[in-house]
Amino acid sequence: MTKRVNLLNDYNSPAHPCVLEAIARASGDKFVGYGEDGESDAARAALRSLLRSPDADIHFLVGGTQANLTAIGAFLRPHEAVIAPASAHINTHETGAVEATGHKILTVDRPDGKIGPADVQGIMGLHGDEHMVKPRLLFISQSTEFGTVYTKAELAALRDVCDNNHLYLYIDGARLGYALTAEKCDFELPELCRIADAFYIGGTKNGLLFGEALVLCNPSLRDDFRYHMKQRGGLLAKGYLLGIQFQALFNDDLYFKMARHANEMAQRLHQLLAASGYAFEIDTESNQLFPIVRKQDIPLLEEQILFNRWNALDGDRASIRLITTWNTTEQEIQEAARIL
Amino acid sequence: MTKRVNLLNDYNSPAHPCVLEAIARASGDKFVGYGEDGESDAARAALRSLLRSPDADIHFLVGGTQANLTAIGAFLRPHEAVIAPASAHINTHETGAVEATGHKILTVDRPDGKIGPADVQGIMGLHGDEHMVKPRLLFISQSTEFGTVYTKAELAALRDVCDNNHLYLYIDGARLGYALTAEKCDFELPELCRIADAFYIGGTKNGLLFGEALVLCNPSLRDDFRYHMKQRGGLLAKGYLLGIQFQALFNDDLYFKMARHANEMAQRLHQLLAASGYAFEIDTESNQLFPIVRKQDIPLLEEQILFNRWNALDGDRASIRLITTWNTTEQEIQEAARIL
Amino acid sequence: MTKRVNLLNDYNSPAHPCVLEAIARASGDKFVGYGEDGESDAARAALRSLLRSPDADIHFLVGGTQANLTAIGAFLRPHEAVIAPASAHINTHETGAVEATGHKILTVDRPDGKIGPADVQGIMGLHGDEHMVKPRLLFISQSTEFGTVYTKAELAALRDVCDNNHLYLYIDGARLGYALTAEKCDFELPELCRIADAFYIGGTKNGLLFGEALVLCNPSLRDDFRYHMKQRGGLLAKGYLLGIQFQALFNDDLYFKMARHANEMAQRLHQLLAASGYAFEIDTESNQLFPIVRKQDIPLLEEQILFNRWNALDGDRASIRLITTWNTTEQEIQEAARIL
Amino acid sequence: MTKRVNLLNDYNSPAHPCVLEAIARASGDKFVGYGEDGESDAARAALRSLLRSPDADIHFLVGGTQANLTAIGAFLRPHEAVIAPASAHINTHETGAVEATGHKILTVDRPDGKIGPADVQGIMGLHGDEHMVKPRLLFISQSTEFGTVYTKAELAALRDVCDNNHLYLYIDGARLGYALTAEKCDFELPELCRIADAFYIGGTKNGLLFGEALVLCNPSLRDDFRYHMKQRGGLLAKGYLLGIQFQALFNDDLYFKMARHANEMAQRLHQLLAASGYAFEIDTESNQLFPIVRKQDIPLLEEQILFNRWNALDGDRASIRLITTWNTTEQEIQEAARIL
Repeated sequence: MTKRVNLLNDYNSPAHPCVLEAIARASGDKFVGYGEDGESDAARAALRSLLRSPDADIHFLVGGTQANLTAIGAFLRPHEAVIAPASAHINTHETGAVEATGHKILTVDRPDGKIGPADVQGIMGLHGDEHMVKPRLLFISQSTEFGTVYTKAELAALRDVCDNNHLYLYIDGARLGYALTAEKCDFELPELCRIADAFYIGGTKNGLLFGEALVLCNPSLRDDFRYHMKQRGGLLAKGYLLGIQFQALFNDDLYFKMARHANEMAQRLHQLLAASGYAFEIDTESNQLFPIVRKQDIPLLEEQILFNRWNALDGDRASIRLITTWNTTEQEIQEAARIL
Repeated sequence: MTKRVNLLNDYNSPAHPCVLEAIARASGDKFVGYGEDGESDAARAALRSLLRSPDADIHFLVGGTQANLTAIGAFLRPHEAVIAPASAHINTHETGAVEATGHKILTVDRPDGKIGPADVQGIMGLHGDEHMVKPRLLFISQSTEFGTVYTKAELAALRDVCDNNHLYLYIDGARLGYALTAEKCDFELPELCRIADAFYIGGTKNGLLFGEALVLCNPSLRDDFRYHMKQRGGLLAKGYLLGIQFQALFNDDLYFKMARHANEMAQRLHQLLAASGYAFEIDTESNQLFPIVRKQDIPLLEEQILFNRWNALDGDRASIRLITTWNTTEQEIQEAARIL
Repeated sequence: MTKRVNLLNDYNSPAHPCVLEAIARASGDKFVGYGEDGESDAARAALRSLLRSPDADIHFLVGGTQANLTAIGAFLRPHEAVIAPASAHINTHETGAVEATGHKILTVDRPDGKIGPADVQGIMGLHGDEHMVKPRLLFISQSTEFGTVYTKAELAALRDVCDNNHLYLYIDGARLGYALTAEKCDFELPELCRIADAFYIGGTKNGLLFGEALVLCNPSLRDDFRYHMKQRGGLLAKGYLLGIQFQALFNDDLYFKMARHANEMAQRLHQLLAASGYAFEIDTESNQLFPIVRKQDIPLLEEQILFNRWNALDGDRASIRLITTWNTTEQEIQEAARIL
Repeated sequence: MTKRVNLLNDYNSPAHPCVLEAIARASGDKFVGYGEDGESDAARAALRSLLRSPDADIHFLVGGTQANLTAIGAFLRPHEAVIAPASAHINTHETGAVEATGHKILTVDRPDGKIGPADVQGIMGLHGDEHMVKPRLLFISQSTEFGTVYTKAELAALRDVCDNNHLYLYIDGARLGYALTAEKCDFELPELCRIADAFYIGGTKNGLLFGEALVLCNPSLRDDFRYHMKQRGGLLAKGYLLGIQFQALFNDDLYFKMARHANEMAQRLHQLLAASGYAFEIDTESNQLFPIVRKQDIPLLEEQILFNRWNALDGDRASIRLITTWNTTEQEIQEAARIL
């Protein structure tokens, strides 16, 4: 990529040096395949300890779309459906992967990218007989596609509505680190084992070469899960590469350090822009910023900063999306603020 | 893994040092995602040059099951079926991944793991109307699951039977390097672009951390292929990791050097064992050996060598499978021969 | 069912006497199976003549959900999606049958149950790369789920937007007869062969025991269609039963006579209710009426009339749905009007 | 069809007169849709009584392929597979319908069209980890595709092997009547509720216009079954047509009378042919005969009798398939014997 300030996404750099070093250290060793090696065992043990959940069933997958389609395809019977925010990654940016496993997604569109108990209950009220799909799983992302963060109370309310409606609660944690280290977040990682039936901890967007750690909290979802991984193409032959990386990630607080740094850079940039008079389409709760700019300024900005165009707003205004990550520097933030 | 001589498989080591160094060199850079980066472009260009096929459409995927299910799922309409040897990886060891995309596999069982024109024609003769599936794709592996190698004449005959029966010819090249550098192989890589409609060049079992390069030779199979990759969970976010690795693989003949070494080690071991009086269930044509041992000796052997049990034969005889790879050493071969 | 006036649906009576007589006449004969019999040939010939489309490819299926899922599943590649009104039968009342064949449905919600060119263009504008599904088929119903009827100009405009966006236009004609004989309809049946890529003529809701005649207008959609019918369970063993019924339906204008009668009964009832001061949630364009009643009156009405509850409106108002059919009598209309 | 003697199949006549009369009698009535009517209730009650199984869960579907794909698709999770004889209808003549729901079929090829406990155990022995599908359902047909009939002891042994291997036992009863009334059959209909987890009683090939009665014996298979029927296109709008027909079928022993007659005609023909010196490829156990003829005689025979060619045997011999049914007459049998 060019010399432009990169605020495009959180997967544009290979991996944190500690992760690469861990792989390098293992390069002379030999391992059994498919995640049945000691490195993967150690990574699972480390994560169980972090989760304070000694019996959690943990599987490492390569990417997020794969994790979502494998889990949802495994959890649901053919006539069962997913409820999700309209902005959910599975609904917009996974090329119909969930539908390709045979399941409908029922959506609610809200500007903050979240979904609430009343939204869920509303959908349930519309689905009552065999002429319609049967909603069975609530899909949310933490942080959401818009960088917003669910509080503990919000998640507890969703857990309740799921319990009352026989729904699984699944949390896409592609950017879970950024949520857990957000100022707004009032709970810690182990809490998720009580809230969700399953969730994954994203590594790809949080400093690994690749890898997502899927945690199956609900015992009824665990049977034969490795069969589903294999069938969907998600059982990595050199599974030990995932074990090695996740050990590095969960060692010495690295996962949280990286995420916290990205959030701090986002807050810094937010303050600089707000001070310059910028408004934001969505508040900056984690590592995503949505400042509002003039449409005609966008091409010029694109010459100097890498980012995504977001929504066309009223008049000549439009929002753009900026993302910070573990290796975003103070200098880049200053430079971006200067340009903007 | 233990100190035992490892002849278990060709994916038990992380990667060749050149591959790891290439990733390490790129670790400070930033790249756009999903294979649209310059490294992936360069790797595709290198492979096109190697194939002497300037317009070949090339896609990098993480693993073999994923490559197979994505390609076959993309190529076939719902009522179309695959013809394959009964021993084909898709038929035995991919947990029904092809069927999970909706397609039946029709098989012929032969002891050498191959399929011939008469086998294909026989299946076609049994399928003539809409009450049966419509065979549309012939799946073979080069080398086969038993390490045997198709000659140019054999492949040309399969191409003919495919042309005569409106079948695509797809070659699973998880171990293609070992086939191309086998003594028996009488053709070179570019030939495959004339023989196959699509094939993949395996990296996972040939020295990469992971990665398979899928080559779409037939232009009619190219439309929208990236959609299928994304839908099946096979479009790696950090696609540049594949580009970097495949550049290393195709540089300075590394791909062939590694495969040739493995074949040489296999031949050396074959000669040592044959000299000791061992018979083989299947002839040693590439990097897999199937010596026949006494059943009662197997547990003792397993204490000193890592390998797979293969077939129970008559009487007290059984075959085992030994696999060599790029980092199998002369010393390991001597040691294995000594143990056996 | 009870003695109540039946305005529940158009599939509550077995079949028109002419249809039953035709089956009775054939009861001593023997026929080859799976629609390859002379009766089915004759029915196809009769329909081609009616369509003034000598080369139309016609297939008879048992029911509407089956017709929709078989056709859409056959027409689309895995990554392709359907655009439809949110109220479309496939989106609301077919238990995710289209998604079960692997395809996402993208919807626009409009109170009249229709979709327009701008709606389609809007969805196309949001789908541009391989991270999203690729819209490929526009699904509409004529008449719609709300009984509204597309005019020739409206359909021509949809044909244009489909041509401009590489979309197939598919028309669900479960109630096509009621649309074609509606006062508002300004075109005749053969016109559909120019407008749609495929459509079906519903028999189940128009006087047959069962049966839908699917017309494949676009030659590119015809290949191997019978394979898809068989695979989805839609190739009736005694296909001649469909041939016999559709001959009866297309003989002596029976199809249109039945539909016209139902529409007349609907108009009669509309006038009586309007004269009594009733307002309607949706205008009465074919054989469905949506009068607005007081919520508290509904239980009492249900004791005397069979109908479906529809929408809760503001205050104490709600709409109900009344459906007329070929055997709705003048007396039933008077009785229903009296009760209401 | 022509004046030739029809021994082609058992679905070439519309329906038994009693069935047609029952429909005619109901033609003036009105019924609620989708099998929730009184006629369907009465038919289910009649069948439960016949089965001496007051809690059996019964669903009426239109055809056999639909019954098989709906049931198997509903019973299995994505990674689970079917074990079946190679000759099973689902494996050979349903256009990959089971695979289209995502499930692999594992087969054993035996000349009698059956499968035995050792065959099942053999397949189980080959499937032990997540790299392979997980067998979960044993599919058999009674009678088989070759007209052979399982005895009570054979079925009990299959039940045992299923119990020992965590397999469902599913029986395709497209021609169940012919099996139950076969001389060789040593058990009665209610026994099936103890042997099978699910089975269906075929009406299409036993005198109905159409219709199969699926019996879910195992309570764990019953949840939400109507959702699966609707999703696969198998919930007939005018479900009362199935209820009316099955009442007629289960009334006054009609089902068994028709089947018994067909078997008697088959035995008569067998004796006549055997007396003329004919050998049979497979023994005549129900309503299918497989006499061996000279290849060169087949075209001439086809001019006078409607039948299917079967297997080419050694030398100039080949087998043909003859099928008798409820309306095969003594005169037709004599005529066929004379011709042969």
